[in-house]
Parts: sequence; C-alpha cells; structure tokens
Amino acid sequence: MAPPWVKKLTPSGPQGSELLEQERAQSNVPVKKLSEFLFSKQVLERQGRLLDILKAEKVFNKSQNYFDGREARFQTALARAKRMRQLAVQHRWSQDEYMMASELISEPGPYGLHASMFLITLRDQGTPEQHELFLKKAENYEFIGCYAQTELGHGSNVRGLETTATWNADDKTFTLHSPHLTASKWWIGSMGRTANHAVVMAQLMIDGKSYGPHPFVVQIRDMKTHEPLENIHVGDIGPKFGYNTMDNGFLLLNHVKVPHAHMLAKFSSVDPKTNKYVKPASASLVYGTLTWVRSTIVLQSGGVLARGVTIAIRYAAIRRQFQDRDAKESDVGENQVLNYTMVQVRLLPLLAATFALHFTGRGMMALYQENQRKMAGDVGKVAHTGRGPSPEELFPSTDLLADLHSTSCGLKALASTTAAEGLEVCRRACGGHGYSSFSGIGSWYADYLPTTTWEGDNYMLTQQVARYLLKSARSVLKGNLSENDTTRILRTFLSRRDIGAAFDVLGRDEDIVAAFAWRASFLTFEALKHRDEEKNSWNSLLVDFWRLSTAHSQYLIVKNFHEALQSESMQSELGAETTTLMHKLFRLFALHTLEREASEFFSSGAVTVRQIQLARTKAVMKLLEEIRPHSVSLVDAWHFPDWVLDSSLGRHDGKVYEDLFERASELNPLNALTIDPYPNSEVLIKKDEREKFRSKL
Amino acid sequence: MAPPWVKKLTPSGPQGSELLEQERAQSNVPVKKLSEFLFSKQVLERQGRLLDILKAEKVFNKSQNYFDGREARFQTALARAKRMRQLAVQHRWSQDEYMMASELISEPGPYGLHASMFLITLRDQGTPEQHELFLKKAENYEFIGCYAQTELGHGSNVRGLETTATWNADDKTFTLHSPHLTASKWWIGSMGRTANHAVVMAQLMIDGKSYGPHPFVVQIRDMKTHEPLENIHVGDIGPKFGYNTMDNGFLLLNHVKVPHAHMLAKFSSVDPKTNKYVKPASASLVYGTLTWVRSTIVLQSGGVLARGVTIAIRYAAIRRQFQDRDAKESDVGENQVLNYTMVQVRLLPLLAATFALHFTGRGMMALYQENQRKMAGDVGKVAHTGRGPSPEELFPSTDLLADLHSTSCGLKALASTTAAEGLEVCRRACGGHGYSSFSGIGSWYADYLPTTTWEGDNYMLTQQVARYLLKSARSVLKGNLSENDTTRILRTFLSRRDIGAAFDVLGRDEDIVAAFAWRASFLTFEALKHRDEEKNSWNSLLVDFWRLSTAHSQYLIVKNFHEALQSESMQSELGAETTTLMHKLFRLFALHTLEREASEFFSSGAVTVRQIQLARTKAVMKLLEEIRPHSVSLVDAWHFPDWVLDSSLGRHDGKVYEDLFERASELNPLNALTIDPYPNSEVLIKKDEREKFRSKL
Repeated sequence: MAPPWVKKLTPSGPQGSELLEQERAQSNVPVKKLSEFLFSKQVLERQGRLLDILKAEKVFNKSQNYFDGREARFQTALARAKRMRQLAVQHRWSQDEYMMASELISEPGPYGLHASMFLITLRDQGTPEQHELFLKKAENYEFIGCYAQTELGHGSNVRGLETTATWNADDKTFTLHSPHLTASKWWIGSMGRTANHAVVMAQLMIDGKSYGPHPFVVQIRDMKTHEPLENIHVGDIGPKFGYNTMDNGFLLLNHVKVPHAHMLAKFSSVDPKTNKYVKPASASLVYGTLTWVRSTIVLQSGGVLARGVTIAIRYAAIRRQFQDRDAKESDVGENQVLNYTMVQVRLLPLLAATFALHFTGRGMMALYQENQRKMAGDVGKVAHTGRGPSPEELFPSTDLLADLHSTSCGLKALASTTAAEGLEVCRRACGGHGYSSFSGIGSWYADYLPTTTWEGDNYMLTQQVARYLLKSARSVLKGNLSENDTTRILRTFLSRRDIGAAFDVLGRDEDIVAAFAWRASFLTFEALKHRDEEKNSWNSLLVDFWRLSTAHSQYLIVKNFHEALQSESMQSELGAETTTLMHKLFRLFALHTLEREASEFFSSGAVTVRQIQLARTKAVMKLLEEIRPHSVSLVDAWHFPDWVLDSSLGRHDGKVYEDLFERASELNPLNALTIDPYPNSEVLIKKDEREKFRSKL
Repeated sequence: MAPPWVKKLTPSGPQGSELLEQERAQSNVPVKKLSEFLFSKQVLERQGRLLDILKAEKVFNKSQNYFDGREARFQTALARAKRMRQLAVQHRWSQDEYMMASELISEPGPYGLHASMFLITLRDQGTPEQHELFLKKAENYEFIGCYAQTELGHGSNVRGLETTATWNADDKTFTLHSPHLTASKWWIGSMGRTANHAVVMAQLMIDGKSYGPHPFVVQIRDMKTHEPLENIHVGDIGPKFGYNTMDNGFLLLNHVKVPHAHMLAKFSSVDPKTNKYVKPASASLVYGTLTWVRSTIVLQSGGVLARGVTIAIRYAAIRRQFQDRDAKESDVGENQVLNYTMVQVRLLPLLAATFALHFTGRGMMALYQENQRKMAGDVGKVAHTGRGPSPEELFPSTDLLADLHSTSCGLKALASTTAAEGLEVCRRACGGHGYSSFSGIGSWYADYLPTTTWEGDNYMLTQQVARYLLKSARSVLKGNLSENDTTRILRTFLSRRDIGAAFDVLGRDEDIVAAFAWRASFLTFEALKHRDEEKNSWNSLLVDFWRLSTAHSQYLIVKNFHEALQSESMQSELGAETTTLMHKLFRLFALHTLEREASEFFSSGAVTVRQIQLARTKAVMKLLEEIRPHSVSLVDAWHFPDWVLDSSLGRHDGKVYEDLFERASELNPLNALTIDPYPNSEVLIKKDEREKFRSKL
C-alpha cells in the first residue's frame, strides 16, 4: 500500500535496536542460564522444536488475528484446532507437547474443552464399560464433547443447578430436562458450534427425590449433519470481552431420554434392578481435582504476567519522552521512559512478582506432589505421565488435603488477580500505544480475565481460606499439637503476642517473611475474636475474611520466594551475582507489598511507622535503581519468542515503530475501503478492495 | 431460531422484575426529584425528546453492535454520523443537543474530531479571512477534517514533534514534511478513512531556525474521489482495545506545499513581506483551552462511572447465589448477591463516588466560569452559547489560572482513573455474566480508557499539581499573603502543625474535610523538604508527587461533595430524608477513601490508628447497611434509558435472563454457521445461513 518514498523512511535515532543492545550490554545477567534455571533445558528445547513446526504451517499465521471479527476468528481457530490435532497424531505428541503447542498459539480454541474436561471426566468418572462406549470414540475425535455444568442462573453454587435427570424405572432410562430458562446451560466451552456430545451435570431424581448433581453423557448434535437433535436447543452465547475464538455455548433440553449407561457411574449410580441410588465412593474427589486445577493456575500466573512485563519493559527502554528536569542544558536527547521512577515503580515490582509467582507455583506443585507421594506411595506419577491425574492420584488424607486446599484457594485468588491487574498496569505503562491492539497486551489480558472467575470466584475463594485459618486458630488455642506451617506461624504469634514483634524488615530477609507471617496471624486471631467472641454474622465479616486471605497468601508468596533463594541449585547454576539480584527482586516484591498494605502491617504491630516510611522512601527507591539496569535482561530470561508475544512494542529486536507502521499500513483491511465522507451522500463505500487485499496476504 | 417449546420457558422465580419492584418499594428516595436535582428538568426533557427521534431511525438500531467486527462497525458508525448530521440540520439542533444525541448513541463516530477539534481550531486560531477560506466549508461539511498533533514517536511532549513546515520565501509557501517514520502523525481521530483535510501541527522553520509547533491546514484527500493526494500517505492505524468505530489515522507528508494562507494566523504568523516570524499574542492560550477540556472530563466522569454502577447494582439485586451462612434451615431461597457485604463494599463506595464526582465536576465548572466572569465581565457566556469557548473567554488572569490549571490537572487524573477503574470493578462484580459483551460494561470501559491518557497522561499530570503545590508552599513560607483555597489549607496546617490535629472524622463531616486538607498539606511540606532542603532530584520524587497530587485531589472531591450538601437547594428540593441519605453517601465515600489511604492519614497525624480501625470495622460497614436498601433507587435517579445502557444485566425492568437468552439465541450471527467439527475433514463450514439471518433482523 505504501508508496516508494515511504519505504525509505526510518525512525529518528537512536534506533530501538540500538537501545535494547545497550540495555543488554549493561547487564551481566546470564540470560540463557537463567532461562534454563526457570524452565529446564529440556523444556526450552521442546519449545524451539514445536515452534518450528507451527511457524511452518500457513494456518497458524497470526497476521490477521488483531483485525478479524468474531466469526472470522472462530473459523480460523477451528481450522487451527483441526490442524493441531493432525500434527499431534502425525508427530505423536505427548499431552505435554500438545499443551505447549497450544500455549505457543496462545488462543483458546474450539477443541479446548473436549481435550481437557470432556476427556478427563469420561476417563475419571466412567466405568470400564463406559470407557468402551464413550472414551475411545472421544479420544479418536468421533465424539467431540464439552462439560456442561454452569447454568444461566447458577454459577458457583453447584447445588443450585436446575437441570434434572429423572430415572424412569419402567424403561431404565433417564429423562434430562431444563424446567426453566435459568436452567439453560451457559458459558459451556466448545458447546456453541463444535461439540456433538456433552457431559451434562443434572440433579438426579429417583422416585421424586433429588440426589444432587451427577454427570450424564448426552448426544446433542447429529453425527453427520451436525444439526441439533430434536428437543435440544443449543448454540453460541455470543461475543465476550475476550475468549472470542472459543464457542462458549448454551443448551436447553426438552425431556430428552438417555439410556442407563449414559450416567457416568464410577462413583455413584442407579441400580437398574432395584431402582435404588448407589452412593459415591468418596465425597472428596472433586475437592482433589479442583486443588490440582487451582495449583496449575498459580503455576501459570507468573508466565501470564511476564508476557505483559516483557512487552512493557522493552518498550519503556525504547520509548523516549521529555528530558530529565534536572538535566543539563547540553543534554538535548529525550529520556528513556524506563528511567523515570514513576514508570519503574509501576513495572519493576511486577517484574519481581513474575519471579515470586513462578517460584510460588513451583512450591505449590511440589507440595501437591509431596502429598500425593505420601498418600499413594507412588512417586511422581502425575508429573511424568503427561496426562491429568486419576482419582487415585488425587486422594491424599483429609488433614493434609485441607491445608493444601486452603493454600490452593488463597493462592489461586491472589495469583490470578495479581496477573490480571498487573497486565493492565503494563498496558497503561505503554502510554497511548498500549491501547493499540498491536501492543499485544489488551487481547492477552481480555483472554486471561475469566481465570479470576472460574475454578472458584476469587472473592468467594477467600471464604474457604478464612474458614480454614479460623479452624486452625481454634485448634491451636485448644492446645492441639498437629503441626503444619499454618499452625506453626499461629503458635509463634501467640507466644510473642504480648512481648511484641521487632522485625528488622529493612535488614534481614528472614524478618520480612516473619513480618508477613505475623500480620497474617494477627488478622486470623482478630477475625476469630469477631466471629467466636463477638458473635458477628458471617456476612458482616466477609471483608475481613477477604483481607485475611490476601494477607495469608501474600505471606505464602513471600515465603516461597525466600525459600527458592535458599536453594543450593540457584547459587550453583546462576552464580553469586545473579543470586544477589534475585534477592533484590525478592526484597522489592516484599517491601513494595508491605508498603502498599502498610496500615495492616502497622496496626498488627509487625513493623513501626518509621520502618514503613523508610521502606518507601529509601529501600524501594534504591532497589528500583539497582534493578533497572538488568530489567531488559531479566525479561529476556522469560524467553518468549516474538511469534508468541505477537507485539509491536515487545519485539526482541526493538523495531517497535517499523512494526507498528507495517501492521497499520500494510496489513489493515480497513484501508482497503474507500468511503464517501459527505453527510448528504447515500453512498457509504466508494471502493471496496478488500478481496484483492486479502488475496495478497 | 428457537423452537416453540423454548419460547414457553421463563426464569425460575422470583423474577428479576419482582425483585427490582421490591427494591424500589422499600426505598423512599424521590427518584424523579433527585434526577431533576442532578440534571434539571430542562435537560431531562431534552433527553426524552432526542431519544424519541433517534429510536425511530433504523440506522441507530443497536442490536448488532456487540456482534459486528471492526469493518462493519465502522461502516455503521459512518452511516450513523451522516444521519446525525442530517437530523441536526433538519431539527436545527444546538451544539448541546448534538452533543447529547451523540451521548445517547454512545459510540465514537467518524465525524468526532471534525465536529470538535477541527472546527474549534479553525475558529479560534484562524483569522477572519481564514474563516472565509476554511471555516465556512468546514461548518458545511464540505471540508471534513481532523486535528493532527500526536506522532508515532511523540506523545505528550509537543515540543518534540518532528514534522516540519518550512517557509519558502521565494514563492511564499510552506513545505510540510515528515523527515522520519517516527514523524508520522498517529492516533489522529477521523483521519484514517474520513477526513479530506487536516490541521497539522508542525515545527515552523524560517531560514533554518525553528519557531516551535504551529497549525497548518492541509488537504489530504481528493474532494471527489476521496483518494489520498500525491505525496501523502494516509490511513487507519488499525484496531484498538476500544474506540473501534473511530478511524484513528496516520499521515506521512512528502514535501507537500501549501500557500501562505494555510498557516492559522490569529496568534502568530509569518510576514510574507519581511519573511519574519510574528510573535503570538499570548502563550497562555492553550493553557486555558486545556483547562476547559479537562474540566469537562471531570464533569463527565460521574456519569461515566454511573453507567457501570447502574448495571452492576441492578443485576446484583436480581442475581441470587447461595444462602446466608447464618440463615435458618427453613430459609431455602438463595440470597440476593447485593446482600453480601463483600459485594456491597465493592459497589456502594462507587455509587457514592458517582455523586462525589458529579458535584465536583459541577464545582469545577462553576470555578471555571467564575474566573471567566471575573476576567471578562461576561457572565455565563460559555455556558449558554452551546459552543466551545472562544480565546477571549479562555483567558483569565494568570494567578487564578494557575490554581485552576492545577485543580483541573489533578482532578482530571483522579476522576478519570476512578471512573475507568471503577467500571472494571463493576464488570467483575457481575460475576461470569459481566464478561459477556451483553453486560454492556466491557465495551463502555474499553471506549472510555483512552481518557486516562489523552488531554494529559494521568501520571504526567500529577507533576503539574505537585509543582503548583510546592510553589504555593514556598510562597506561604515566605509570608506571601495571596489567598486562595490552597494557601489557606497550607497556612492552617502550619499554624497547628506543632499542636497536632484532633479531627473527629467519625463524628463531624467538617472534620473529615479538614483531615483530608491536613494530609494533603502534610505531604506538600514533606515533598518541599525533600526537594528544597534535601535537594533530591526531581525524578526521584515523582512517586511522592503522584501521591501528593492524588491526596490533594481527593481533598478537593471531599470538599466539593461536602459543599454541595450545604447548598440550600438540596434541602429544599430533595427534602430532609434524602439530604440525610446524601450525607451518608458523602461519609461512605470519604471514610472508605480514608481507610484505603490509611497509612498516609496516620503518618501525617491527621487521624489515629484507632480511628482508622473504627472507620473500617464500624462506620463503613454501618453505612453500607444503611445505604443498601436505597441503592436501586439511587441508580435509577441517574436516569439512563435502557437504549443507552444497551445491557442485559442493567435493564430497568429486571428481565436479565430473558434478554441474555434472546440476544444469544436470536441475534447471534455465529449461530447461522453450521460447522464440520471433525479434525480430518477439510470442510470448515457445512452451512452458512448468515445472509438469511441478517435479512431477517
């Protein structure tokens, strides 16, 4: 599109590439070693191998992603999903490889819920006979399915579901039915246009009595025509803030009969002879699965945030604006935006948070697997099989599980909120260009946002944490001796409560961790007093519980980050200098958090007002200054290929302006429309060259 | 699309309409009176009249807005812009009426920058001869224009612009040129596809010397073919996070000549005889215009936020989830989400903020107009003419202007940040359905976001405020007697600094205002110490300055809200009970803010730790309980027509689930595509009935 004289233009100097080179030259961070420390050589090698395969396929070309509307994006996503499946078969990808390829493509696809929840549910909740009936066809993509739980009027409260599955004793079938509009299944991923089957969660009714929600396999579309079957109304629920490559769907059932075998019966069933309900093997099953899912969200949150931080920090090193106000007259050039403390204070604590979340996710997963080992005596099975865990793997003893459950709830809420809100901070820190789709942050943020709601709404989850902490506090007060980290910090607090704390948070890293533990413990006993002594209503304490959960989860993150720094492998693999830098990131994350939550730290007596002032005006500002020269190298270590970031602002080579211009001028289909601008003309479009434009792409 | 059995389904009870009726019945807020108090009868009448006109026109039908992709949305927006102009001519709309009609349509349109900045700049910066040449044709929509200032590499720092306009003494012309890629004009509203002319800001060069940025009128497209002229490369910059109905554009100029008359010459010019620069009449001009623009942003922020609050509060009254944990066994129904304190604490302070911002915007505008009066002796001209202010109207004395400038900077930053972030809080408070486009919040949020960047980036602006406050503090310390609100609070602080404060923030409203003034003054003198005594660099203090500006602006909002409560008109128009409720909203806003910023209030000595704890655990919780029964009536008073909200969740009649379902099932074009879901099939789409679907709409 651009005439020849345009093609000769370059950005005014210094060039983005020069600025990033300069940034990389001034830091001695061993980027490659740090990447390997974070991800392992094996994973990085796999990433490179899969990336080459995907980039070679035309269907994965991303150039129109930001331009296409919903219908076009969905069609492309479908084509990609098909091709991905073909490649998986062709290259015999493991589940891990398939997941990594999906991550590289970075868009939710129409097979998303088939490949996860549908297959897992059939496998884990189906009997061997049902595996024959359903699972084999599903693994072979004859049955393409989804998992239909949420309803139009019912989200988190699963017991409130309205869809019924009524046992017909006469012909040994179930009738599935949606009694009201609010019973419509809603938000069901892969259901809108793609699935031909669904696992439907419905209230099991036998002889007029309800036995609670159970899973049923229901065919929803014809295997040949792919049209909805009779008495089934199914479709896509419409556009969303993000996630528009996925066909989240709705489903209404009008007295639809399914055979007895369609109720997944591994744990509970209806005996067709007696017409009686057979009780489930264990009620804790879902508890375990959800813990695993939440732990995964924690594990991913660091990387999710790191994409935004990578883009924002690279661009802040390239973007220059104004001169330093105290600069000499002779300094004529504009200042890199990354040099301004107001930009540093927004981005560098988030950079620190990416590492904090990464190490916490690792810690969380290790805890989970340790429990699995203890329970099953079956070392590392989950980690190595490359598939989701089976029920046996997910069933540790209830005591340990309660602690793990609480930890996973609190950290899921805090980690996903931190990542989501951090991404928006990164986008805004990019100034005006952050608002362009080409920044790559907006769509990533919008696609990530539902994570704060699904697998437990982040606000709801904090009640689970509070309930657990109150229970632990009661047990400690009663002199119960059971020991885990929670009871340990509560006992420490009790033993020193009257003496007071005197943590040297500016001097000793251990004392920072102790101060976070102290504040969380203080809030626990405060909440306990409100509930047990003052007899306040549960509802009146929800805000306190949310604060308590946040405080405890912040403690866990600080503790996990600190523990990671103590590992021998860090020192030996990264060397002393980089370990010192990691310590600085730890302190920046912790002290910045402490300062933001100052009033709780102060009123709990964990620190003095003077310490908070010093943390803010001295310690944090000094850490920003010390970390700033390494910030580009540190985000480089997160090792995002440009193809994955798909961002003009975050390019590894710094060619920000060239890329913004190229996309606007050469790839933008709107520019193939010539309009008639005059208000009294009925003509809107004088010339439409979009077909020609698209054929050239 | 839905079969007959679906059409018989209703939501399970209680119905949304019943729940909202119940909410409205339990509050004695005189909704109509409150609306009239907020907006005036005249404005409400105008709104109704214009709404009827717009709703009668098919082109303004909104039903496909959430579904259409960018190209379709832009085309619809163009058709709407044309029709709006026709209606304005036909009905002889005033500027106020045209603006209100645009607000009702609620989408940025392709004439947006023509109707505002292009016309204003021509009028205010053009000579009478230039009005003949350009303005008349522009007012008549023969010239359709835009205002081209920002460049690809240059945002806030106008002096850094690269585009040049070189005076040619020989033929008395200017040559406009883009020397680098980074000189490309960028983000220019209405330029991408629509404008045929632009006011281009370019560095005026005479005889090798630069005289800074000046405005030039440049034709960019052919008046008949609408194709770009030679040596001009212009187009749309591509999709954005929001604002996609607007064609923000780019522009590169390759040695383009324009006649002498094309430099807008009201304030400065080039004398074609002497070839010398003629100096501007006043340097403060832009200063004044920007103050007016920022005041408008403050004025609008309350209403912007109120849209999200209206949607979220209505839906929270309808959505029910779980039972209260302390509820009796016999209570079987689920609880309205609005009854949970964790929801209240997120939504009700924002409800209070809508009023706080509204009254502050009113106060800000009054202050602006009072200054105008004082300066021009020309009462209320700006308010009544229904057009933008002229330069004369915008030029009060520099002393008053400095205070007004600082106030407008600080409040613009805080008000637009509060509105933008508040909208996202509202969206999340709607749970899963908040993520659906049909919530109506996501797109409104995305379209509003650039307000935090344009007319001064919200972070950059805080430096202006800090600079002014430091200057005022120095002047007070020197014993300068000039009196305005800023020097008054600084003097009060100094006079009592050693005695200490003892504000009864929980008991007396005046003391709340005084505590906010105290904290802002404390931070001012702290910052002054860091800068003047400790000689810290400007850059190292940017974070302190941002905090200071925020603190001062929060004080201004609290003060303005409090002053509005003292007005006689409120008591007489709304009655005692509603005035009491307004006082509660004031206290909720102020104490919730105080509690969030607790550490600054405490370390400044404005309040005690005990007061903060009481504010949180007692006062705020009690206010939530007292305001909750009136919350639906209070948002009703904001008086948003359903047509404007365009939200399933925010419907006045409460038919939330019916509307979500209708849009998904009957209006969603994706459901007119039947796909082939099998991975090994090359076919993507088996049946495409979208044409048929659209023809039925």
